[in-house]
Amino acid sequence: MKALAFDVFGTVVDWRGSIIREATAFGKKHGIDADWARFADAWRAGYRPAMQKVRSGELPWLTIDALHRLILDDLAVVFGLRGLPGSELDQLNRVWHRLDPWPDAVPGLTRLKSRYVITTLSNGNVSLLTNMAKRAGLPWDCVVSAELFRHYKPDPEAYVGTADLLDVAPHEMMLVACHPDDLRAARATGCRTGYVERPLELGAGHSSPRVEAGEFDVVARDFLELADRLGA
Amino acid sequence: MKALAFDVFGTVVDWRGSIIREATAFGKKHGIDADWARFADAWRAGYRPAMQKVRSGELPWLTIDALHRLILDDLAVVFGLRGLPGSELDQLNRVWHRLDPWPDAVPGLTRLKSRYVITTLSNGNVSLLTNMAKRAGLPWDCVVSAELFRHYKPDPEAYVGTADLLDVAPHEMMLVACHPDDLRAARATGCRTGYVERPLELGAGHSSPRVEAGEFDVVARDFLELADRLGA
Repeated sequence: MKALAFDVFGTVVDWRGSIIREATAFGKKHGIDADWARFADAWRAGYRPAMQKVRSGELPWLTIDALHRLILDDLAVVFGLRGLPGSELDQLNRVWHRLDPWPDAVPGLTRLKSRYVITTLSNGNVSLLTNMAKRAGLPWDCVVSAELFRHYKPDPEAYVGTADLLDVAPHEMMLVACHPDDLRAARATGCRTGYVERPLELGAGHSSPRVEAGEFDVVARDFLELADRLGA
Repeated sequence: MKALAFDVFGTVVDWRGSIIREATAFGKKHGIDADWARFADAWRAGYRPAMQKVRSGELPWLTIDALHRLILDDLAVVFGLRGLPGSELDQLNRVWHRLDPWPDAVPGLTRLKSRYVITTLSNGNVSLLTNMAKRAGLPWDCVVSAELFRHYKPDPEAYVGTADLLDVAPHEMMLVACHPDDLRAARATGCRTGYVERPLELGAGHSSPRVEAGEFDVVARDFLELADRLGA
């Protein structure tokens, strides 16, 4: 195996905690009182249906930045942000560029990088992933996004396209993700799979998704255990 | 200005010195005596005509790895490599993944990265640039290649496409290169331009290309002087 491709939202970064924190500060600044945890969850919940509209052709190709902005426009009505200037909402929309990594992410990636090519394979656009990595110190060897293929995961083109760009066979690349459906789609294209549990992705009190024993090539609690398993 | 996009072959890495060194070792290993400096120059000289065939449509899209291999097949006849196994030539072909940076490249990029997004913008394919960066410690924020646009520089799509991926306007991005024609093509798309002299690119005794005073936004002797000029 030569390369590891990482899902990012949830797997590498804590989108929910980061958005709650920024949105709470945003609300305080603008004197808006709202349930910012519900806001974060609603924003994320809009993401799959919006991508599905692109995947089905109902919407033309749009980046995740653009999709996040469309969803935010809807949420602005519900959460009392409608009167704010567009530039303020643009700035809030870019919170997705400023998500914080899980505590094991940077040390784990640093170890894994010593032995494998490590890349993103995210539905987030290139500029989002680049800005996020720069701010958070994520040591990617390169930044690969669904944007490069104009196919969102779980379309097979995203996994196969990443292996092609890295000039490795699918079985020489492992997708690492905390989402079983992403891993199953990668496996269907011949990629190896590494499942990392992120029990706090949706907040405390949620259980991790169910996976079958032996369903994925590697299962790990975090990136440090993943590095142990992969000899890095 | 937000981002710096770097030409790579010649501007960041010393392709000629690196190839001479590896080819000399390769010749010694296989008992082949040849003028390896002439070999390096001939390999590089085949690059523009090969790309031109792709740009004109005479050849389908091929990566630089594939073009380098086609040229190497021709050179193998001239330089006495024809009897070697294909796997040995494949390995030699990947010397372009193993080029050494100029001495100022890593410290200069590290300084520039503290203030700007720094990316490659090379005709080299993504895997080549990724492997090169990993080996040489080039601290790119992301890896952008003509491969992503299926348009080789100096096609305008390469420059405009890079700014689009980084979500910056062309005037917010500077192309940094030691090749005036590359810079002129970038300028024609609205990008800023930084000319760095690399008087040793073609070996000692060659003069740098002629540039007009004021033709480019910044002129620097190396990446450290570039960092000085750009306040990084």
